[in-house]
Amino acid sequence: MNDRAIGVFDSGLGGLTCVKELKRLMPKETIIYFGDTGRVPYGTRSRETIIKYVSQNIRFLKTFDVKLIAAACGTASTLALSEARDAAGDIPVIGVVEGASEDAVKATKNGRIGVIGTPATIGSGAYEKALKSIKSDVYIKSAACPLFVPVVENGRTGKDDPIVKILVDEYLRGIKEAGCDALILGCTHYPLLREAIAEYLGEGTALIDSGQSEAAKIARYLNENGLAAESARPARFFVSDANVYNFSALAGMFLGEDIGGDVEKTDIEKY
Amino acid sequence: MNDRAIGVFDSGLGGLTCVKELKRLMPKETIIYFGDTGRVPYGTRSRETIIKYVSQNIRFLKTFDVKLIAAACGTASTLALSEARDAAGDIPVIGVVEGASEDAVKATKNGRIGVIGTPATIGSGAYEKALKSIKSDVYIKSAACPLFVPVVENGRTGKDDPIVKILVDEYLRGIKEAGCDALILGCTHYPLLREAIAEYLGEGTALIDSGQSEAAKIARYLNENGLAAESARPARFFVSDANVYNFSALAGMFLGEDIGGDVEKTDIEKY
Repeated sequence: MNDRAIGVFDSGLGGLTCVKELKRLMPKETIIYFGDTGRVPYGTRSRETIIKYVSQNIRFLKTFDVKLIAAACGTASTLALSEARDAAGDIPVIGVVEGASEDAVKATKNGRIGVIGTPATIGSGAYEKALKSIKSDVYIKSAACPLFVPVVENGRTGKDDPIVKILVDEYLRGIKEAGCDALILGCTHYPLLREAIAEYLGEGTALIDSGQSEAAKIARYLNENGLAAESARPARFFVSDANVYNFSALAGMFLGEDIGGDVEKTDIEKY
Repeated sequence: MNDRAIGVFDSGLGGLTCVKELKRLMPKETIIYFGDTGRVPYGTRSRETIIKYVSQNIRFLKTFDVKLIAAACGTASTLALSEARDAAGDIPVIGVVEGASEDAVKATKNGRIGVIGTPATIGSGAYEKALKSIKSDVYIKSAACPLFVPVVENGRTGKDDPIVKILVDEYLRGIKEAGCDALILGCTHYPLLREAIAEYLGEGTALIDSGQSEAAKIARYLNENGLAAESARPARFFVSDANVYNFSALAGMFLGEDIGGDVEKTDIEKY
């Protein structure tokens, strides 16, 4: 057993979709969350910038003596995972790609998998590589969704929101036309758009929530390695923008419950 | 006469709308531009974060021995102008608010002025204060447009783009209904949406381009103070994200011509 906390980071609020599932699967774990709200979004920036930001996030989380770090950010997981591991040293770092890819291959019946993510994630080809390594003959149709993160970070997630409807149609049309029966939501913000996406693609398409898959992978890892905790301390939430109130308000939407504690501001550039 | 360069900064590409007008009015001036593409957008962040970023931008531009700094960013001009001036020391800093407010008061016939900007700008009340100080009985209707910057930074500016159409209707309906005959585009990204906004509001509404107003104010300032240049050196463009190619490609859209030079990356966090 190991009562040290789990560090979780994301560019903003999206990583809370992983935290939500982690709390459900492993209620005795203590969570230290960092949302880089002063520099969100990541997915429209260059790899060099993303690596710099991710390395700072890791160094910040390491100050809490965490036992594991979840890169609960699709962009960080696809573009900067090895650099994140370098920065983490001997602390294991788990990203979203592996778990989601495994779950997608399990879910598909016709071998046709869709992947959506930020422009940086889709440009990286990381999901294609992971999926092909699990099942070499899988067909993959990918689509970048550059405006999903700003839309979600602005709290617009309803399936009848006209902006959401248009973007879902525009970004997912190719995947729908390709007949994919499993879709990886390759950015932890996207589960907030699940209703709109599900309605557009229809019931025949399984939606793989990458944050949820990651939480399941973390739970397996902790249990298999004897690292699960015996009792949880209250979660702590940190952000890099001073508008912590805004984070608290939107966080409830992601977690499905009140965050139950203060949100603290940190100067991430110092790490 | 003074051949030192003019420093111009914005959160990203928007400030180029000011540069475009500055080049037209004062072709002999040398421009050093900084776009904070590694941290854009500013207008959905807290005042504390904006002040930190703006102060770094100013310190960076000061390394070029500039004679004047243009805060060609509506958010910076409305939330952090005095802090920008503190960081600039004896170098004058001109923002977008004064020029645009003067031009709006000149343009309105019915005394009803609309103002659009980022949530941070609208929340600051800076335009209301400036407009009332010029003409105390002016009626002002303001609206925050949180998704305009990400939409424009993604290159979506066409008046028939469905996302643009919906957002213009949503954000500007109140201003249209209030019968405003002048509208301040209080963020330097918004002139890229001019066609869509003009079509929605109709010909009776004058659109005040805050970047253009700022350029005119700078031109007057330089001429009145004997600071105009005699011969221009090539402009230099700096950004904080490594994806300089993306900046070059989109910059032409803002400038209305090729930027005519390399874009250089700088580590803005060091300043």
